[in-house]
Amino acid sequence: MPTPGPIEYANASPQVKAVYDEIMTTRKVDWINNFWKMLANDPEALERTWRNTRDIMAPGTLDAVTKELIYLAVSATNGCEYCLASHTTSARKKGMTDGMHGELMAVIALANGNNALASGYRTVVDEAFK
Amino acid sequence: MPTPGPIEYANASPQVKAVYDEIMTTRKVDWINNFWKMLANDPEALERTWRNTRDIMAPGTLDAVTKELIYLAVSATNGCEYCLASHTTSARKKGMTDGMHGELMAVIALANGNNALASGYRTVVDEAFK
Amino acid sequence: MPTPGPIEYANASPQVKAVYDEIMTTRKVDWINNFWKMLANDPEALERTWRNTRDIMAPGTLDAVTKELIYLAVSATNGCEYCLASHTTSARKKGMTDGMHGELMAVIALANGNNALASGYRTVVDEAFK
Amino acid sequence: MPTPGPIEYANASPQVKAVYDEIMTTRKVDWINNFWKMLANDPEALERTWRNTRDIMAPGTLDAVTKELIYLAVSATNGCEYCLASHTTSARKKGMTDGMHGELMAVIALANGNNALASGYRTVVDEAFK
Amino acid sequence: MPTPGPIEYANASPQVKAVYDEIMTTRKVDWINNFWKMLANDPEALERTWRNTRDIMAPGTLDAVTKELIYLAVSATNGCEYCLASHTTSARKKGMTDGMHGELMAVIALANGNNALASGYRTVVDEAFK
Amino acid sequence: MPTPGPIEYANASPQVKAVYDEIMTTRKVDWINNFWKMLANDPEALERTWRNTRDIMAPGTLDAVTKELIYLAVSATNGCEYCLASHTTSARKKGMTDGMHGELMAVIALANGNNALASGYRTVVDEAFK
Repeated sequence: MPTPGPIEYANASPQVKAVYDEIMTTRKVDWINNFWKMLANDPEALERTWRNTRDIMAPGTLDAVTKELIYLAVSATNGCEYCLASHTTSARKKGMTDGMHGELMAVIALANGNNALASGYRTVVDEAFK
Repeated sequence: MPTPGPIEYANASPQVKAVYDEIMTTRKVDWINNFWKMLANDPEALERTWRNTRDIMAPGTLDAVTKELIYLAVSATNGCEYCLASHTTSARKKGMTDGMHGELMAVIALANGNNALASGYRTVVDEAFK
Repeated sequence: MPTPGPIEYANASPQVKAVYDEIMTTRKVDWINNFWKMLANDPEALERTWRNTRDIMAPGTLDAVTKELIYLAVSATNGCEYCLASHTTSARKKGMTDGMHGELMAVIALANGNNALASGYRTVVDEAFK
Repeated sequence: MPTPGPIEYANASPQVKAVYDEIMTTRKVDWINNFWKMLANDPEALERTWRNTRDIMAPGTLDAVTKELIYLAVSATNGCEYCLASHTTSARKKGMTDGMHGELMAVIALANGNNALASGYRTVVDEAFK
Repeated sequence: MPTPGPIEYANASPQVKAVYDEIMTTRKVDWINNFWKMLANDPEALERTWRNTRDIMAPGTLDAVTKELIYLAVSATNGCEYCLASHTTSARKKGMTDGMHGELMAVIALANGNNALASGYRTVVDEAFK
Repeated sequence: MPTPGPIEYANASPQVKAVYDEIMTTRKVDWINNFWKMLANDPEALERTWRNTRDIMAPGTLDAVTKELIYLAVSATNGCEYCLASHTTSARKKGMTDGMHGELMAVIALANGNNALASGYRTVVDEAFK
């Protein structure tokens, strides 16, 4: 078990419980995943991170599933195991199909490869792109 | 000027010219950007990278602009200056509005921050996500 | 078990044992963690890495715990599971409190998010910062 | 000039001007750096990012200069040119000396090197660190 | 088990089986590793990635083991656990000795450390290198 | 000009001059590049980094040009502009041909793409690779 450990609902302060309750209500789930339980060691960070996540991931000009695809692209690039596990699940709940997942992965791989080529060849930015 | 330098159309081999022609036809442009001119130092790599990019970025289950958003998410995470310059331009040509760009950036920032939190807190993957 | 495997004290050469002894004496511990046991497959690398780590992490203008915070910031950004496990432990031994850990994580998340925004928006460095 | 371009104070909406004013007051400066001018293309992001940055970077359990050192450690690891330019300046304003800067860089280099060694050797996390 | 899960040979479509057969023949093995079984969820990606990997990793101007060293350098820098596991194995099969592995790791660590120093100190590219 | 700025030979302390002299003698050049001039702000770091670089990059089991290829693979993956500029030059001086450079870049792009696929698909390490 890492230190510090996860804060379970039963042991949480009223401030933390209030955020946990809002997470479960907003997401229509009856449990809290470990990301929030670890963050609860710093209640201010829990509140701020939840508020930001809730607002930014809500549908806007971009729909909810497109936002999850973008989130997964970042997480695969960083190799963040936890984030890939949790957001592959949430992307599917919001409508990501197998076909979308496959194309997402293909674009991620292409971009990571091409990024390394552009940097590795020391490519100068074209005037037209400035 | 980096070494090796960019291969201009006028100096290109027939194999390279053929790829350049296909790039200009496919993209309806009359010039070649530096990414391809650098890659042309290795004609096999030029052909393979162009073919992969053309196929993967074509509309499929995901539309063209969504693929560009994913590409930009990878490029911002890697901090690839050239890729951000060229693909911000192509994303706009394919329909990315200011509103979409702003939300894209917000999700990228959120995901990079949350990735670091999940790793930094050594968060254990929940059973439900396995 | 990865290949190559860890070199245990009992099987170590005199050169490796000498480094192991110095690690245990300096750190006031009676065991060697896997980072050094893997490095011991290359005794020169073991010596060099230990010497650099010992010298750089010793208190100087920056105190020992501040250096551990910086080390953790790098490790969380790289998502290095082993380094986060071992250096969260050493940071705590050197005085990192829960409050310091929470603020460390918050700054790491903020910086990773803002780094992506600065790159993603292709922000030009202000004259005043040059 | 990148697209979208920076929003100058004179052209800013009242919502954006209010954030700009607060940034200048809080930081006791009479100009706005490009990071905020780019973010101002998305006023919600500007407000959220400023609020988070202001709160997280304020002195708490960790003092202001220590937080800047952590911020620089993340930015050097990500190779974020803009962030290194702006936060080297702010770290110096908050008290980072040449000696502190040198030791900061040494720890950052060590940690990035050791992170790669730990991952590259596929080092298994010791039981004592779990 | 992640979603989507690995596609086993027995359940594979003829298109996927054909790629699996070619992988086993080319590599002289009688099983398929999980990288390909996951990719098989997107048969086009499987074919394209296999074809690229087969062509690029084949001996050319650079011999097969040098290419594996380069592959491992990228994988250690990205901290990709799966890639380090599979390509340490393939590098050894192609002739990487313990001595080569140790020196590879030393160069990887040095370069990651020096990269962070060059970026962190905001080092200006010398005219002679342009 | 970044702060701190580069330390020129004429203004260097005897300790720094001694390292500069050794760099020029070892490399058979008559000037010092900016990487070392920035590091010279911390003479201990200059000495340590030079000593490590000299020892690790010297021919051993791996020859000098192979070590430069590995160094470039790390630098392209990190997108380190300075390191790519300086080490593309040194790799060429040590014998990297256009053909080797092209294949190097192809392997770097492949590995970065495949790393993202392995992580993105949450690929489980096969028993045979453990």
